[in-house]
This record gives sequence, structure tokens and C-alpha cells, in this order.
Amino acid sequence: MLVVQKYGGSSVADADRIMAVATRVARTREKADVAIVVSAMGKTTDNLIALAQQLSTAPDPREMDKLLATGEQASSALMTMALQSLGCKAVSLTGGQAGIITEVVHRKARISKIDPTRMRRELDKGNVLVIAGFQGITEHASWADITTLGRGGSDTTAVAVARALDADRCEIYTDVEGVYTTDPRIVPEARKLDSVSYEEMLELAGQGAKVMHSRAVELGELYDIEILVAHSQTEAPGTVIRHEDEQMEIRNPVRGIAHDAKTNRITVASVPDIPGAASRIFHALAEKNVSVDIIVQNVSSKGVTDLSFTVNDEDFGTALAVTTAVAKDLNAGEVTVDEDVAKVSIVGTGIRSHPGYADKMFSALAEAGINILSITTSEIRITVLINSDDIQQAVRVLHQAFELEKA
Amino acid sequence: MLVVQKYGGSSVADADRIMAVATRVARTREKADVAIVVSAMGKTTDNLIALAQQLSTAPDPREMDKLLATGEQASSALMTMALQSLGCKAVSLTGGQAGIITEVVHRKARISKIDPTRMRRELDKGNVLVIAGFQGITEHASWADITTLGRGGSDTTAVAVARALDADRCEIYTDVEGVYTTDPRIVPEARKLDSVSYEEMLELAGQGAKVMHSRAVELGELYDIEILVAHSQTEAPGTVIRHEDEQMEIRNPVRGIAHDAKTNRITVASVPDIPGAASRIFHALAEKNVSVDIIVQNVSSKGVTDLSFTVNDEDFGTALAVTTAVAKDLNAGEVTVDEDVAKVSIVGTGIRSHPGYADKMFSALAEAGINILSITTSEIRITVLINSDDIQQAVRVLHQAFELEKA
Repeated sequence: MLVVQKYGGSSVADADRIMAVATRVARTREKADVAIVVSAMGKTTDNLIALAQQLSTAPDPREMDKLLATGEQASSALMTMALQSLGCKAVSLTGGQAGIITEVVHRKARISKIDPTRMRRELDKGNVLVIAGFQGITEHASWADITTLGRGGSDTTAVAVARALDADRCEIYTDVEGVYTTDPRIVPEARKLDSVSYEEMLELAGQGAKVMHSRAVELGELYDIEILVAHSQTEAPGTVIRHEDEQMEIRNPVRGIAHDAKTNRITVASVPDIPGAASRIFHALAEKNVSVDIIVQNVSSKGVTDLSFTVNDEDFGTALAVTTAVAKDLNAGEVTVDEDVAKVSIVGTGIRSHPGYADKMFSALAEAGINILSITTSEIRITVLINSDDIQQAVRVLHQAFELEKA
Repeated sequence: MLVVQKYGGSSVADADRIMAVATRVARTREKADVAIVVSAMGKTTDNLIALAQQLSTAPDPREMDKLLATGEQASSALMTMALQSLGCKAVSLTGGQAGIITEVVHRKARISKIDPTRMRRELDKGNVLVIAGFQGITEHASWADITTLGRGGSDTTAVAVARALDADRCEIYTDVEGVYTTDPRIVPEARKLDSVSYEEMLELAGQGAKVMHSRAVELGELYDIEILVAHSQTEAPGTVIRHEDEQMEIRNPVRGIAHDAKTNRITVASVPDIPGAASRIFHALAEKNVSVDIIVQNVSSKGVTDLSFTVNDEDFGTALAVTTAVAKDLNAGEVTVDEDVAKVSIVGTGIRSHPGYADKMFSALAEAGINILSITTSEIRITVLINSDDIQQAVRVLHQAFELEKA
């Protein structure tokens, strides 16, 4: 049996925690082959970014990747030492040494392939693999540059490695005990879910549940890999992410309330209602690697329409610059921003096929006096944009309205 | 013209100093092509070692190399960002990306070859090369492991890169203004030397002058590369290391007083006076990569002899274990240690050919009441081992006796 485990930054934040994780890994090793993926220690990545920003207002992405990749390289070496000191054979591998090849894009590279030859050989020698998460290299052997997979990329590394090694289990260890019906810091009655589907997890994660990286969930779905999310320092059972099970029809269709307390809305007024106008904007944003979240475009009147979308803080500056330029080209109206908006969603497979959930959601918010700025829906979620100030109350009233505290 | 410059850890200890170095490099770039080699920031390496020691009493050398190499990888990326923010085209290269191939030995690897192809191509693009010092990779392309060159290895990187690129100048920037007649902290009258020969520098460095790494000086001598040692934050002219010049015959044959305030003496009593006995001991030490410093073996009596040698703190534990094992095999007597000894040397080309220097040295020490534990000499130095407590006084009286304060 082969188990892939990923340990996040807070799980390896200092020597004591690294040793605690090593002890856990050594125990797993008694029953199975093990490959672990580690993040950088604690706040290392944030500290490195802060240092870079002292030196350059727009640090070169290639250099940023090289800088940030040191965090995981260091933690993988330290974890390997900890395992060895417990008498557990282990070897650290950088992304490149693990055979993780990415496209030639920096800061947000996608994995193009994994050559598992070295991983296999090290496993055959009886080693625990300790893989530096979040990173890969570009293809060309001796000219290879270091790339990183973007925030949360260690989750992606873990799932991709699980696939490349045809692992029996993929476990993501973090500082939460699993996926909750909503953020327990806001709603103390929030309940841990035993399982969620990939789609539900994607909506929960994408809408702001800080448990696991979306790309990793997508990859898990694509390759049908069951993923356990659990706490790295407790024995609590965690949450399994897998394809929908047969319980779906009789359970509560609403599985959780996702929220994102801080996003930025950009609105372009009076966009000419001609084919390709929206595409021009979003093509330009995609070229700059800006992740656009909620897009709302209403029916047009008098040949023009207003177009809104939200982006996270990191991409906001770029997004605004790009949008302003394209809006000018399009002879559109003013570009306005609202930096004090938040998203809240109800998420669950089959929400669409169960009538009445939208009504119940909007009513609950209305009763609490919370104004809805805009609405979007997907097959498995309904999302509203509200003022940031209302976010905690919104999460609370929705959790209660859908009785999520009940199993 | 191509200039190779090396900047040590204290020169890149924080964002301000990195920016100061970048400004200096950008100025040099106006007149020449530039390749710089950087050490890890400030105390990074020491901090990483301390972290490793919390996890393992004997960290795996392969993992230590991987851990420590992150320091220079990070500083090279940061320096590159700083240069770019000044409008100076630059690219960072890890040891491997710079084509630095080493033997498959960890912690103290020697460079086996440098493939300058990528460095050349980046220079041709108009980039300043910012090379991570102290590190290389093992030969086998996709299986390459990261190696480090040992303490001070960034100096070695700089000289080796200067050779590989056939550079016109090699400049080592550090936190001292050059090579002094002795440590100015001990003797305020110590005088900075305009030039020293490679041999003198080797003796000065090897005997404890903390200016530059011996291997780098040896490499400079081997390839006849003039090396400037100067302060990274001032415009003081520094010291040039080069082959002896014609002034040698008329100048003071004693060029400086070197000292090493802390070393460890290991003595094996009653070693059988048979061919190969010493070789057995030193072969075993070499196999463990222990650098042995002063070796003293006196004439034998009754078929046995006492053998002493000194090793630095880092190697002391290994050296003692190895020596004790071999001494037992040889049926030698007790192995004793003295951890409170220090070395002081007079250094200068032609000391041997000028009679009377040994006498003058020993007399000066005797007058100061300093007891000599043992004596060794080379072509260009005379070294005595004394008690650690006497070291500062010894340096002072010798500096005065040889009138080194006079130009």
C-alpha cells in the first residue's frame, strides 16, 4: 500500500511540530509505503514575499519562484532529517527531483507531467519520500528553471503525486479537522462533514473555505482520487472528498455556507452590447493570469450593458489596469470599483433540483436586513454579493435557516 | 571586460545592504560585463544549521546541503530583483544552473568542472549574472543532487567562475578592508597590505586570518587569477593577491602575524615506529573528510613515538573517534586531547632564506613569558602552538618584534 500525505505550513512551523509530524509519518510507514509533501515552515513564504517587496515594487516572477521555492526545499530537508533521526529511512526531493515538470509560467504554473522514475526508485530502496510542495521545474533538463504552482500549490503537488504513483490514499493534513458546514469561528454550531463531493468542495473552497486548494480538488476529481482532509496534530477522522454517494438524495441538499469576507468588485458601465465585448475584457485579464471570480452581466438596455466581476486582493491592481485599458478601447463607460464587498454562498449538490432554496436564502438575508448587491448561481451553489460589514451575520443566519447544525 | 565579484553574507544581510550592493554592481555594469556571486544573508546559514541540530544529532550531509543551499538561492533571487529594480538587466543562477558540477561528496564537495554555456548565453543577453555561491550539483543531469563546497565556499565559487569565464578581474567583497599584518582588533597598529602572494595569503588564511577561504586562494594561484579583497561598503582600495613581485627582496620578509585562537590538539602516545603507522591514522581521517592542520611527530625512542595534530572544532568529534579506533588497531598508547590550545604564526615569503627569524620569534615569546607547546615550519611561515590564554599577548609582541606597523 502507498499513502501520499501532505503537511501544510502550520504543521511544520517549528522543530517541535516537524518532529511531531515525523513521528506520525514513521507510524504510517510501519504499515505502508509513504510519500509526503511538505509546505514551507509557518510564515516563511509571507516573509520572503515581504522581503522581495522591499527590493522591488514588481519583483520578476522567475526570481520570485526561485526565492519562494527555497521555503519548501528547506522544510523537506528538515523533515527528512527528523524522520532519519527516528530511524525511518527517508530522502528529500525538490519538485524537479520528484520529476514534476510544469509549463513555462511563473507564480501559477500548471503541472504538465510527472516522471515518477526517481520517486519509484527511492521508494524501492525503502525510503519515505519527502517532496518539496508547491514547485516544479520547466522541461529542458540542464536549463530548467524553478516554477511554483501558486498559493496552496502543495495540495496540488500531493494529488498529482498520488496520481503519478498510483497511490492508494491521498491525505491532506492541515490545521483544521476537516470541512465544516461553515467557518466555526463565525458559527460555533458549525458541524464537520464526514464527506463532500468534489463539486461541493470546489464551491466551498473557491468561495472562501480555506481548507484546500481548488486545483487540487479538480485534479482529484479528474483522476478519481479520494482525498482525506484532516488535522495534522489530532486523531480526529477528518472529511473525505469523493464522488457523490447514494446518500445524496436523502440528505440535506445544502451542505455548507461558504464565505469570502473580502473581495473587490470591478464594474464597467455602458459596455456596448456587441458580440465579443465581454470576451475582449476577459481575454485581456486571462493573458495577465488574473483569476476572475463572480461575473455578472444584466440584460442590456439602449444597446449597452453593465458588466461586473470580482477579483481577489492580489490580482486587483492588475485587473483594474487591464480593465480600464480595454474599456477605453471598447468606448465603454466609467470603470468603478467597490473594495468593500463580500461573498456568501449556500453550497450543495442538487440545490438547483430542489426548488425553494434561493427563496429561503434571500428571505433569510432580507429578514436580517442584509442588502444583496448581486446574485449568481451554479448547479450546486447560490452566491450573493453583500457589503463586507454584513458577512458574519449573513453566514450565521444562513447556517441557521438551512439547519446545518443538524446531522 | 568581464568582472567577477563576490559579496559575503554580511554584505547582503538585509534589504538595505542588498540594495547598496546592487547600486555598486549597477555602477560596475556601466563599464564592464559583470558576474556576481552571493553568500546567504547574514546569519542564515548558522540559523539553518541550528534548526537542523534541533531535529537530528547527526544530520544527513545530503539533506544538510539541500537545506543550506536555500540560503544562497534566496539571496541570489533577491539580489537579482534589486538589480532589476535599478533598471539593470540581471538573472539569478543556482550553482547547478551556472553549470558548477562537483564530486559526489556532501558538505565539502570540490568542483570537478564548470560548463559555462548558460552563463555565457545570459551574459550575451546583457544580463548581470547573480550566482548562488557555495553550491553545485552532482553530475548526472536529471538525478543531480545539490552539494555545497564547505564554509567559505562562495569565495571558491567566485574564483572558479572567474576562471571558467576567463574574467579580467576577480573581486572578493567582504566586511574587512583587506589583508592586514594581523588582526586589528588585537593590534590597533596593524597595517593593511597592498598586496600579498598566494602563498602568504594561504598561510595567513589557513592560520586563522578570517578574510578569505583557502581553497579559493589555491584555485587563484593554480589558474594565475589576481584576486582583489576589499570592503563591500567603502571605496578603500583593498589588498591584491597575486604572484610575488620584485619588491620581495627588499621588503620586510615577515608580512603578517596569523593566529587561530581556538584549535584542538589530539596526541597519540607510543605509536609503534613502523612504516605506515602515521599513514594509517591520516588515511582514516581523510576518509572521513577531516581537515588535519598542524602535524608534529618527534624522533622516536624505544621503537615508539608520540604523534600530535590539530583539528578545528567542527571536525574534532569525528577526528577523536577515528583516531581512537585506529590507535587501538595499531596497539598504540593513550589518545589525549587538549582543547585549550591556539596557534600563532609569522608569515612571509623568504622567511626560511633569512636566518634569525625563528630565533627572534621564540625570543620575543620567551621574553613575554609565553610557553611554546610545539613548533612547525613551512617555507614561508613559522608556527607555534601555545595556550589559548596567551594568544592575544603573543600576537601583540610578535607584531612589535617584527616592526610590522612600519610600511
